Amino acid sequence: MKALVLLSGGQDSTTCLAQACDDFPNEVTTLAFNYGQRHTIELEQAKKIAALANVPFHIIDLSYIATLSQNALTSHTIPIESSSETLPNTFVPGRNIFFLSTAAVIAKEKEISILYTGVCETDYSGYPDCRHDFIKSLETTVSLGLDYPITIKTPLMNLTKAETVLLMKSLGKLDWYKESHTCYEGKRPACGTCPACLLRLQGFKKANIIDPIKYIKN
Amino acid sequence: MKALVLLSGGQDSTTCLAQACDDFPNEVTTLAFNYGQRHTIELEQAKKIAALANVPFHIIDLSYIATLSQNALTSHTIPIESSSETLPNTFVPGRNIFFLSTAAVIAKEKEISILYTGVCETDYSGYPDCRHDFIKSLETTVSLGLDYPITIKTPLMNLTKAETVLLMKSLGKLDWYKESHTCYEGKRPACGTCPACLLRLQGFKKANIIDPIKYIKN
Repeated sequence: MKALVLLSGGQDSTTCLAQACDDFPNEVTTLAFNYGQRHTIELEQAKKIAALANVPFHIIDLSYIATLSQNALTSHTIPIESSSETLPNTFVPGRNIFFLSTAAVIAKEKEISILYTGVCETDYSGYPDCRHDFIKSLETTVSLGLDYPITIKTPLMNLTKAETVLLMKSLGKLDWYKESHTCYEGKRPACGTCPACLLRLQGFKKANIIDPIKYIKN
Repeated sequence: MKALVLLSGGQDSTTCLAQACDDFPNEVTTLAFNYGQRHTIELEQAKKIAALANVPFHIIDLSYIATLSQNALTSHTIPIESSSETLPNTFVPGRNIFFLSTAAVIAKEKEISILYTGVCETDYSGYPDCRHDFIKSLETTVSLGLDYPITIKTPLMNLTKAETVLLMKSLGKLDWYKESHTCYEGKRPACGTCPACLLRLQGFKKANIIDPIKYIKN
């Protein structure tokens, strides 16, 4: 194996998987994380996408990270956020540190030096742990800490959602999107009205490509 | 709180705690990790040391990291190492990435910006994740990933064991060492013959100070 793809089951990581399979045919494996996300349907879909790509798939339980920022250690009372427009309150600051560090340790064990992640500076995220500077710094840190060279590839870093869809088209894997999951409401067919669905639909529209997943409303 | 000390229950982290308490009186808290270490006595002693220092103490369960390098994900068969002269086979490459990243997330939650860790380039470790360059890189990475300034202080980085003992003397906290645990065999009184005990005893001898813990043989 040459490359390890962090596969969340979303559109971006599905595109990364296609890019990795194009770069390193038959040399790709995948990793997903259970981190206390609201909808385990993402993990079910990730497994189906790995099957479509005919690559190995493993899930690592990182659910402990969901407890770090809202447990008895903190003296603050954190309000419960249940709106679909906000992050789930299981969101962990800097979670990509944990995802990518864990992936790096596993990669070293498997003698893999290349990680792929679908982080992206462009769209809505604004998360500090999705930025280019962070990824390059983490690449250096894990390579030093493991005394093993790790390269973190971020093919979507500067792409819009529409450009991501067009990249997938150029890779000839648009059909993989049929198993990708985006809806914040965890619905399949997708709700078509939550912010994540709207962003996804807008990307396909701008790319002038039809989204292969079903929507309750779009 | 101003500073968070990673407290393992060993001699080095106990010294770091004394340094932190000297730097930031009444503004120090501590964190220990259950990571599948062979002897939980380290955690029991860490708790006692925190009590001696009159600082809060919390344990985070990171036992998942022990599974990363030797589970079904790896295709290699890893020999079981049981000698007291080798690392326990629960040792995880780059574990300080996980310890310090977890500590950084908790620090941010508590509005603390300074971490103390007892890593040391000098003595026997040779671990890549104990080196100065790694620590400085991780400091940058977690600060970027959390969008929050984290400083990682490593007061023992360039000290010998004897110099660490002399530092503790200068801080006036030699008595805290009576609860610190070093013995690889997990024994209290300590065995006095394992490599860790020998290294500890040598450090005290060179510093011309009497180790306050009891030994079966020394």
